Amino acid sequence: MRLSGANSDLIGLQYGYGTLVFESCGSNAFLRPGFMYQPDILVVLAKSWSICLDFVVTNMATPTRIGLAGLAVMGQNLALNIAEKGFPISVYNRSTSKVDETVERAKKEGNLPLYGFHDPESFVLSIQKPRVIIILVKAGLPVDQTIKTLSAFMEKGDCIIDGGNEWYENTERREKEMAELGLLYLGMGVSGGEEGARNGPSMMPGGSFEAYKYIEDILLKVAAQVPGSGPCVTYIGEGGSGNFVKMVHNGIEYGDMQLIAEAYDVLRSVGKLSNAELHQVFSEWNKGELLSFLIEITADIFGVKDDKADGYLVDKVLDKTGMKGTGKWTVQQAAELSVAAPTIAASLDSRFLSGLKDERVQAAKVFESSGVSDIFVEQTVDKNQLIDDVRKALYASKICSYAQGMNLIRAKSVEKGWDLKLGELARIWKGGCIIRAIFLDRIKGAYDRNPDLANLLVDEEFAKEMVERQSAWRRVVCLAVNSGISTPGMSSSLAYFDSYRRESLPANLVQAQRDYFGAHTYERIDVPGAFHTEWFKIAKQSKN
Amino acid sequence: MRLSGANSDLIGLQYGYGTLVFESCGSNAFLRPGFMYQPDILVVLAKSWSICLDFVVTNMATPTRIGLAGLAVMGQNLALNIAEKGFPISVYNRSTSKVDETVERAKKEGNLPLYGFHDPESFVLSIQKPRVIIILVKAGLPVDQTIKTLSAFMEKGDCIIDGGNEWYENTERREKEMAELGLLYLGMGVSGGEEGARNGPSMMPGGSFEAYKYIEDILLKVAAQVPGSGPCVTYIGEGGSGNFVKMVHNGIEYGDMQLIAEAYDVLRSVGKLSNAELHQVFSEWNKGELLSFLIEITADIFGVKDDKADGYLVDKVLDKTGMKGTGKWTVQQAAELSVAAPTIAASLDSRFLSGLKDERVQAAKVFESSGVSDIFVEQTVDKNQLIDDVRKALYASKICSYAQGMNLIRAKSVEKGWDLKLGELARIWKGGCIIRAIFLDRIKGAYDRNPDLANLLVDEEFAKEMVERQSAWRRVVCLAVNSGISTPGMSSSLAYFDSYRRESLPANLVQAQRDYFGAHTYERIDVPGAFHTEWFKIAKQSKN
Repeated sequence: MRLSGANSDLIGLQYGYGTLVFESCGSNAFLRPGFMYQPDILVVLAKSWSICLDFVVTNMATPTRIGLAGLAVMGQNLALNIAEKGFPISVYNRSTSKVDETVERAKKEGNLPLYGFHDPESFVLSIQKPRVIIILVKAGLPVDQTIKTLSAFMEKGDCIIDGGNEWYENTERREKEMAELGLLYLGMGVSGGEEGARNGPSMMPGGSFEAYKYIEDILLKVAAQVPGSGPCVTYIGEGGSGNFVKMVHNGIEYGDMQLIAEAYDVLRSVGKLSNAELHQVFSEWNKGELLSFLIEITADIFGVKDDKADGYLVDKVLDKTGMKGTGKWTVQQAAELSVAAPTIAASLDSRFLSGLKDERVQAAKVFESSGVSDIFVEQTVDKNQLIDDVRKALYASKICSYAQGMNLIRAKSVEKGWDLKLGELARIWKGGCIIRAIFLDRIKGAYDRNPDLANLLVDEEFAKEMVERQSAWRRVVCLAVNSGISTPGMSSSLAYFDSYRRESLPANLVQAQRDYFGAHTYERIDVPGAFHTEWFKIAKQSKN
Repeated sequence: MRLSGANSDLIGLQYGYGTLVFESCGSNAFLRPGFMYQPDILVVLAKSWSICLDFVVTNMATPTRIGLAGLAVMGQNLALNIAEKGFPISVYNRSTSKVDETVERAKKEGNLPLYGFHDPESFVLSIQKPRVIIILVKAGLPVDQTIKTLSAFMEKGDCIIDGGNEWYENTERREKEMAELGLLYLGMGVSGGEEGARNGPSMMPGGSFEAYKYIEDILLKVAAQVPGSGPCVTYIGEGGSGNFVKMVHNGIEYGDMQLIAEAYDVLRSVGKLSNAELHQVFSEWNKGELLSFLIEITADIFGVKDDKADGYLVDKVLDKTGMKGTGKWTVQQAAELSVAAPTIAASLDSRFLSGLKDERVQAAKVFESSGVSDIFVEQTVDKNQLIDDVRKALYASKICSYAQGMNLIRAKSVEKGWDLKLGELARIWKGGCIIRAIFLDRIKGAYDRNPDLANLLVDEEFAKEMVERQSAWRRVVCLAVNSGISTPGMSSSLAYFDSYRRESLPANLVQAQRDYFGAHTYERIDVPGAFHTEWFKIAKQSKN
């Protein structure tokens, strides 16, 4: 706060920007009804700050329903979405230009009931009690800092909701810390990117059920609405469950994107499809079982011409994929929980390898100069058959990927006692989020039929679909292998399928090896118990 | 300690078992020179415990050179190994029967200079200063407990060496805690199983260099000796580097075992080889480029008949593989460090899936009953050609797996500033440890040629080997895919190879997608800088 002092009796206080609007006339300050953002009328005059504050708080005509702190694009859009649904919202950001930007947008996008604040205290005090504040800042330390700043002005019963991609254990730690202050806490995954945040995201709130109930009316209206299956939000569960589910959602998203990239690669490199043809193929695919946001945007991408040079933009994009952490966490958690998630892991590894552009360029030279004629072998293919095969391979691989993600969520739910409902998760992912797809209806159906389904692959409908597609799937993987094109996602999905449906794996040999060198013992197929054999001695005897 | 009281002036103290041997005669105690384990002569008589202890310590004829606490099989064997190399050793274990067992073995295995102690104090005091104690207990809490017990009696300059498979960060934490007490600390990976511990393991000590130098003479003699390349031990580096390297060693071990299991599976399931033939094939392989401990024991395993029923034992072993944590950590660290390690990850996933025996049996039924005729398709193969192909596929996959492990170690070394020498690691793995193999000579050679080699795959010799084997490799993977047999390790290795040597991956599409929905920006192949495109708007315009 800056003092813009007057005479000895009066202190002029610049009380935030646009916090409340007073008519400034001499030594008196009059409150205008309602809130408006008018940065040109800013000076509040009163005898002391506390008089001023009392005056402000007790005379506030309509406190806002909710607050949102952190006004990068996602935060701005979510705030505008909330305001648009009729919930007056206070917004705050550490760097104040973002506040002004958001307020401007609120004006332009329909004079939405959104009120900007430049200081945290007036921001917090402007919200009706019990106060609810959504924070959308970078995960980790910035969240802790924002909580510290805001909670200083919050009161018992108020609630903070972290809407970022936060590591679930941080949420659980903060929930405990907040509880000590009498504050409630939610960790809420929000998916849908910028567009989803503005027009209806999928939201995964976990933590205090009391806090969830208090803002449920807002979330139900703000979320994406899917005809026939409702708003894309539900109370996920206790603790960090909302963040965990969002993390796996992102892992699945990695898998989907990698599988689509592989389909593209096979069609482009083996089938020699042009971008125009790819645009056509993906548009077509988006009318059937693959209908989804990611297939839709892929079709769009193949239609975008380069604005800097000839040709299509996608061909000019450097083949290096960035990442932000949720995919990594998903893979690490899968390992932690003993859940096989090879499709998701392959997509993460592919991002890592994509990052090694310089090394790949060098390696390509090494192998090209070795004069190998049978790497990158041209294959004669029937284009239509190939397109059909790739579609089936993509769909079958996708089922494997979702099976892995769902089993990972269940494993965590069991470990933590969260009692998560897998079918309900499939439902709230049907709209708003990046992985929204018609296919999620089938997943919901599978869990509706059997909530204890061990694996999506053995659901009767999915099993049938796998069987119908597996020949095409095997053809695509072999075609890629023989062409020298890598399809790590599709081939690891296939290996997952072939391992999971196999009564007897060669793991008997691995366990025999472990018993041989480490006396780790083994079980038998015919007799219960743990056994150890002196393999070395017996083998030595039979040699003599 | 138990008191076996005499008269009011004298206190009789049963001072451990076999700690020091006194002649018990009336009220006098005479120290016999040297140490001997004679549990039948145990009562020490002195006026007080402190008098007794002073007497013992000051009159000790020959303190031992080193101590070892934790006498499960690995600990017993390592202690016997040390004693056999001529270093008098004190041993201790919380449950005293293990102490007696070890002492008995030391007698039987050649009256080795090994001295058992039943209480920690006398154990510690029996070792010459500065004292060095190796502990071999279960990783985690038991290590902390053992350290607490022993360090109470240790003095400044003494050193504790944890020889278990410990998480490297625990070692770094303990190194700091010990430093506060003036004690030195080493985390030392020990590989070779029971047999290696007894006859010569591969050892990976990391932490205090001062402590390493003090016991280097012991380690050099105790380690496996490889003619022409020396003892399988070297100072790894600072902090937890010894544990980290051992962890990756184990991850590589997982990969090797999985790849061998897949080779077995293809030969058995597709090639219809009998166990006798498999024994023959693996014995033959062990004479060539695949020569290694794991191939050797695999050959042995196929030769072992069941002692409970007809047939071979390997067919009776349940196909469930256990695990202990280092493979999991390796996969998690690979994700943490952005290093692709798909072969190692596939081997971990295979262990997870092997554990789901009941689910797999159910799934097999679901897919069998679906009446699919083209899953598990019999393939017509030339047996000799298949054997040759599988050998090449195994070798090529193995190169990929080691490339991943080595790059993981390097990434960590860079992060932590450990300055690890990859060629030197390959050298100390040539003998003693589970992954010992002739092939490590080639890896050492590759890093000798170029210590900064980006990836083993692009070393001139390995590149040549990959090229020579890749056709066979592709045939094996496709054969497995078409047979419905999963080869997750071999196919993910192949995908790794095909991704790494690829100048342009389809990651351009993934990055375009990320920019589409999340405004994550992208780089271009032709112009430097970060770009963002309004894909949606442009696509929409072109639709209209």
